[in-house]
Amino acid sequence: MSDPAQLTIAEAARRIQRRQLSPVELTRACIERIERLNPRLNAFVTVTPERALDDAARAEQELLAGQYRGPLHGIPIALKDLYDTAGIETFAGADVLRGRVPAVDSAVARRLREAGTVLLGKTNTHEFAWGTTTNNPHTGPTRNPWDPDRIPGGSSGGSGAAIAARLALGTLGTDTGGSIRIPAALCGCVGLKPTFGLVSRAGVIPMSPQFDHAGPIARTVEDAAIVLGAIAGYDPDDFATVPLPVPDYRAALIPDVRGLRVGVPRDQFFGLVDPEVLVAVEEALETLRGLGAEVVDIDSGFTRDQIISAWRLVNVEGRLYHTPLLDEAAHRYSEELRNILLQPLPEPLDLSAAYRDSYAVKEAVRRLFEQVDLLAAPTTMRTASRIGEDPVEIDGVQLTTGAAFASLTMPFNIAGVPAISVPCGFSSEGLPIGLQLAAAPFAEPTLLRAAHAYECATGWTARAPEL
Amino acid sequence: MSDPAQLTIAEAARRIQRRQLSPVELTRACIERIERLNPRLNAFVTVTPERALDDAARAEQELLAGQYRGPLHGIPIALKDLYDTAGIETFAGADVLRGRVPAVDSAVARRLREAGTVLLGKTNTHEFAWGTTTNNPHTGPTRNPWDPDRIPGGSSGGSGAAIAARLALGTLGTDTGGSIRIPAALCGCVGLKPTFGLVSRAGVIPMSPQFDHAGPIARTVEDAAIVLGAIAGYDPDDFATVPLPVPDYRAALIPDVRGLRVGVPRDQFFGLVDPEVLVAVEEALETLRGLGAEVVDIDSGFTRDQIISAWRLVNVEGRLYHTPLLDEAAHRYSEELRNILLQPLPEPLDLSAAYRDSYAVKEAVRRLFEQVDLLAAPTTMRTASRIGEDPVEIDGVQLTTGAAFASLTMPFNIAGVPAISVPCGFSSEGLPIGLQLAAAPFAEPTLLRAAHAYECATGWTARAPEL
Repeated sequence: MSDPAQLTIAEAARRIQRRQLSPVELTRACIERIERLNPRLNAFVTVTPERALDDAARAEQELLAGQYRGPLHGIPIALKDLYDTAGIETFAGADVLRGRVPAVDSAVARRLREAGTVLLGKTNTHEFAWGTTTNNPHTGPTRNPWDPDRIPGGSSGGSGAAIAARLALGTLGTDTGGSIRIPAALCGCVGLKPTFGLVSRAGVIPMSPQFDHAGPIARTVEDAAIVLGAIAGYDPDDFATVPLPVPDYRAALIPDVRGLRVGVPRDQFFGLVDPEVLVAVEEALETLRGLGAEVVDIDSGFTRDQIISAWRLVNVEGRLYHTPLLDEAAHRYSEELRNILLQPLPEPLDLSAAYRDSYAVKEAVRRLFEQVDLLAAPTTMRTASRIGEDPVEIDGVQLTTGAAFASLTMPFNIAGVPAISVPCGFSSEGLPIGLQLAAAPFAEPTLLRAAHAYECATGWTARAPEL
Repeated sequence: MSDPAQLTIAEAARRIQRRQLSPVELTRACIERIERLNPRLNAFVTVTPERALDDAARAEQELLAGQYRGPLHGIPIALKDLYDTAGIETFAGADVLRGRVPAVDSAVARRLREAGTVLLGKTNTHEFAWGTTTNNPHTGPTRNPWDPDRIPGGSSGGSGAAIAARLALGTLGTDTGGSIRIPAALCGCVGLKPTFGLVSRAGVIPMSPQFDHAGPIARTVEDAAIVLGAIAGYDPDDFATVPLPVPDYRAALIPDVRGLRVGVPRDQFFGLVDPEVLVAVEEALETLRGLGAEVVDIDSGFTRDQIISAWRLVNVEGRLYHTPLLDEAAHRYSEELRNILLQPLPEPLDLSAAYRDSYAVKEAVRRLFEQVDLLAAPTTMRTASRIGEDPVEIDGVQLTTGAAFASLTMPFNIAGVPAISVPCGFSSEGLPIGLQLAAAPFAEPTLLRAAHAYECATGWTARAPEL
């Protein structure tokens, strides 16, 4: 492989540390790929080549001076355009925020900078992250590198596409109902939604602060573990974070699942699912079993009605952020998002019930982890649909893109437990399929260990689209 | 001292471990005091002498068999009647729940049983914990052991009075707006509201799950630390708990505050306060300074409006629990509580703003702990008022009992940070005054260390009312 942009973070880090690869050379390779492929894919909304080359030159000078910041030193990354970046436009894929240039970095942007990363730019998102397709009327659709007529998933679709197309070595997404895991599944990469409270959302444009999560999309589980290690930890500017010691996630990556119990919640996650997706996920369960995990069926303990009820909270919290903007310039919103945001709000008692239901889901899911170490399920009900197609079909049934892509990911946002999507195969059309694993609160080491063991055994994450 | 009921938990535990004191003898002493004093004080609503003597006999047999469970082995305690106790009526001081006998212990009751405690019974509470006086029309008022014409504070007034009158060595309260710290302050004992998420509320009748806290009321900081060590920790049945390792809180109790920075948030906590309370608290600050702490004024970073806005969430969450009970038997509620519960609910957007404000308060308070280790303030604006008096007077101003007693404690419920009330003196009428200290999330070791150093230096916690 002669193009260093095609390296994983772990591989590139090894070469950088041994001075076999220069951060500047690596950054140039990414910029060249972005210049060549982004016009077709529209993964980036803002490219910052000068900032990137500055960051890379600094990383290189530090190395020459004997300073090594760790495995992200000199690694080119991109941030979903929901993350505030000092001096760089951050507009969340929304016309109404065009020209908004934050003065201060988001906590994640700051931590990644301190870890030595190189910032390539900002990736496309569904408008304000309110959707699952990244078919954005203001910034144009992001295209799936596996089939440019198809969506990359969303809302962090630009981040997923950038990883699949090897435009950046790591990207950051946000996930309120599945927005990291969905594009990871549809683009054939790894997407990690950490435990609620593990990664600061300070300086991230909110959707619903009680369900918003920040996390990485990367090529491999190891790469996701490296990024998580840099961004995890207490932050007084995010009310949800907890002052837990941050473990060495990479050290947890022993490719061994023997002794782990994997629960398969068939009642909630295996109903309406595309047959090819089902086959791939069942094969993944067999693989885990073959690796020595104990795979058992388990009842989820929650109901679809509880999920739908709890989700009302997102509409209410979301409305709050948008009300002043809508008052000012509702015409600058897409009709789709305006209709979502202006739908009637629930009655106070229904809202109170929504809280009760969200607590019930959290507790039901936590109780599952008294019986099993992990849950396994499909990430999405189907593979990537065509751009503009809505509703979409699953096994003969028509569903909105929201329901089709987020129904299986939302429960873990409400539960607040960590969940990851790893590639587990391809459809007959060559489209990636995602396996979703979830674990107990703050059990990222176990989650990453199992996902890593699975990817080592299967090699799906090594596949790249032809571009 | 010949009456073992007057021992602290720590002293009794030492004697029990050395076989100088029998759990049965200690339990009998408590039961005798309850029989003698409870008719006057009404601290207990349910006394369980048979259960207590069974527990004590078992503890004694275990000791004879060489089994020692730790510092709560054989220690008689009481639970606020909000904690479910298997086979023992739990009715939250509410006529509408009379005869309610849970099948299963609350998590705290179970953990205390496993720690070897002896259950003496259930303590009185303001009706459903919705108030600060424990003047309960269904169960009668609890009386303050320092002056039986006065309130013990609330809502955990029975627990506070039981500790002050030496009816139990430790009690458990609950605290949504101050209900542990207020009775601790007004009864001259130590009350600890732990960090939100440290102690499970599973099996506790809720007021508002996002602000409800469970914690101890005890004679000394050391006793509170002992109880906290037994009840802290992750519980899948409480969505808020976090799987942090539980430190040895008692080991943190070095009586030394040198090097600690104590912030005094005068803007929010030192406005309308009774002059005698202010003098006692200012003296406490001088004592801390004299012990080597650095005491500095600090701006709270939040506003009273934000607190009032966030508090709306309690009304909405509270309504949810009560709606089916009110539908069934509103006439069995006191008029006072019925009026509170049936007040108009906020509009959805106001409710959403209440969430935003609660997050803002959490983050403002967390940011303070980037500058200081502790906050210090009065626990309440005044000492115990007369039973039935409402409004009450503070420095010539009339306030409801709710505002008069909970205004200075509520912010730390919304913030979710740990806060403790320790005795810091007496008014000219001989009524106890409480010093409130707060710390960063999960910084209980620092909080307990400072509170312990203060109580060692002053000896206020050793004083007992004449009964």
